[in-house]
Amino acid sequence: MGKIICAGLGPGDPELMSVKADRLIREAGHVAFFRKKGRAGQARTIVREMLRDDVVEYPMEYPVTTELRFDSEEYRQQMVDFYADWADRLEALAQEHDIVVLCEGDPFFYGSFMHLHTRLQGRAEVEVIPATPGMVGCWNALDTPFTWGDDVMTVLMGTLPEEDLVKHMGGGDALVVMKTGRNLPRVKRALAAAGRLEEAWFVEKGTMPGQRIARLADVAEDDCPYFAIVLVHGQGRRPEAEA
Amino acid sequence: MGKIICAGLGPGDPELMSVKADRLIREAGHVAFFRKKGRAGQARTIVREMLRDDVVEYPMEYPVTTELRFDSEEYRQQMVDFYADWADRLEALAQEHDIVVLCEGDPFFYGSFMHLHTRLQGRAEVEVIPATPGMVGCWNALDTPFTWGDDVMTVLMGTLPEEDLVKHMGGGDALVVMKTGRNLPRVKRALAAAGRLEEAWFVEKGTMPGQRIARLADVAEDDCPYFAIVLVHGQGRRPEAEA
Repeated sequence: MGKIICAGLGPGDPELMSVKADRLIREAGHVAFFRKKGRAGQARTIVREMLRDDVVEYPMEYPVTTELRFDSEEYRQQMVDFYADWADRLEALAQEHDIVVLCEGDPFFYGSFMHLHTRLQGRAEVEVIPATPGMVGCWNALDTPFTWGDDVMTVLMGTLPEEDLVKHMGGGDALVVMKTGRNLPRVKRALAAAGRLEEAWFVEKGTMPGQRIARLADVAEDDCPYFAIVLVHGQGRRPEAEA
Repeated sequence: MGKIICAGLGPGDPELMSVKADRLIREAGHVAFFRKKGRAGQARTIVREMLRDDVVEYPMEYPVTTELRFDSEEYRQQMVDFYADWADRLEALAQEHDIVVLCEGDPFFYGSFMHLHTRLQGRAEVEVIPATPGMVGCWNALDTPFTWGDDVMTVLMGTLPEEDLVKHMGGGDALVVMKTGRNLPRVKRALAAAGRLEEAWFVEKGTMPGQRIARLADVAEDDCPYFAIVLVHGQGRRPEAEA
C-alpha cells in the first residue's frame, strides 16, 4: 500500500520549495500534475531538473479552458467528472505505491488539489506538504515589507463582482488580487474607485524566469495573464523616530 | 564586503524551510536572530540542528516585553533605539562578511526584520528569502482546504478594536486571526458577534513539537499564547455533483 503525497511547490523558483517537498519529488517513482491541454504545465516545468530518469508521469489535463463559462452547467459537469475520474485513478495507484502530486503555491490555498483531497477522504492515505503561496513570492519580488503592525490583509479574486471588489478594497490595508487575467479592467476600476490604484503593483511570474514587475496603472488592460497578481502594500503602525 | 541575508524559516518544522534558506543557514559563519530576554528564541530553536559548530551568534534581544503599553512614548523610543542600534551593528558586520538573519514565517509578512530592512536601505546589500507564513503551516495542520473559488481571505490582528474585528469578520469568507494571546476574549466575542465562532479553530505551534489543535469555542480565554492562530475556513464555490 502506498499513499498520495501532495507536494506544494511554492512560488516557482525551485530553490524556494521546502526541503521536504524537494526530497520527496527527487525520490518519487510516480508523479501526477495538473496542466492545460497542449501545455507542458507550470508545475511540471518547475520540477524539470529534479525528476528521476525512470519516473512515471500522470498529466491530469483540465477538460476545459476558456470556451465555457465557469457558471455553466456543462462546465460544472465536466469538472465534476474530471475530479471524480482522477480521484479514482489516484486511489487505484495508491493501492500499489506512493504517488506525488505536484501543486504550485500552497495546496490548501485556492489549489486544484483540494477537489481531489475532498473526494479521497476515507479512500486512501493523503498527506499534504504546505508551501510558500505564490503571493508571498510576488511580494518578495518587490523587495518591500508587505504588512505592518495592525494592518488588515485582504486576498481577493479578480472574478468577484466589481461592487464586492470596491467594498473589500476600501476596507483593507494590504491587498492581494489573484485570478486577474481578463478581469484586469474590473480590478483596475475597483482599485481606482477605492482610491488605491496609484499604490498598486503588478507581478507576473514572481521568483521565476521572465519575472515582470510594473506599476499596475502602467499595465495595459489586455496584457495580463490569469496568474499575475496585484499587490497593494500595507502602511501600518511601526516605531519610527519623530518626524 | 558581505551582505545581510534574511532567511525566512517558515512555520516551524525545519523540513518546511526552503532549500535555499536551509543551505544558507548550514553554510553560515554568522547568524543573528530576535529573541525575548531570557529565552532561547524560537528562530534559534528551529535551526538548532543546522548551525556550524564554529558559527558566531548575535542574539538581538527585544528591550521590552509586556511592562509597557505598545502605544506609549517610552515603548516607541525603546524600539526605535533598538532597531537603530541593530541596523548599525548589522551594517558594520556586513562590511566584513555575510551575516544571516533568522526570521520565523515569511520576513515581509508582519516580521520584525522589516524594521531593519527599512533602516538598512542604501547602507548594505540586503537579500530576503521568502518563506511559508506561519498561518499556512497552521491551516495545513488542520488537514482541510482553506480557501475555495471566489472566497475572500482576511487576515486580522487580535490587537484591533473589537468593532473593527466584527466588521471584517462579517465581510470575509476565510479568516485568519494572528497576535491572539491576551486578546483572545475580544477575538472570541467578535467572532460570536459575526456568527463565525462555531466554525473557528485554534492552532498553537502549528507543524512544531507540541502542536495543539482545538475548536476555538473550547479554548479557555486565559490559555492562549501570543503566537497561536485562529482560523475560519472558507466554503466557496466548487464543482460538485448535484445534491
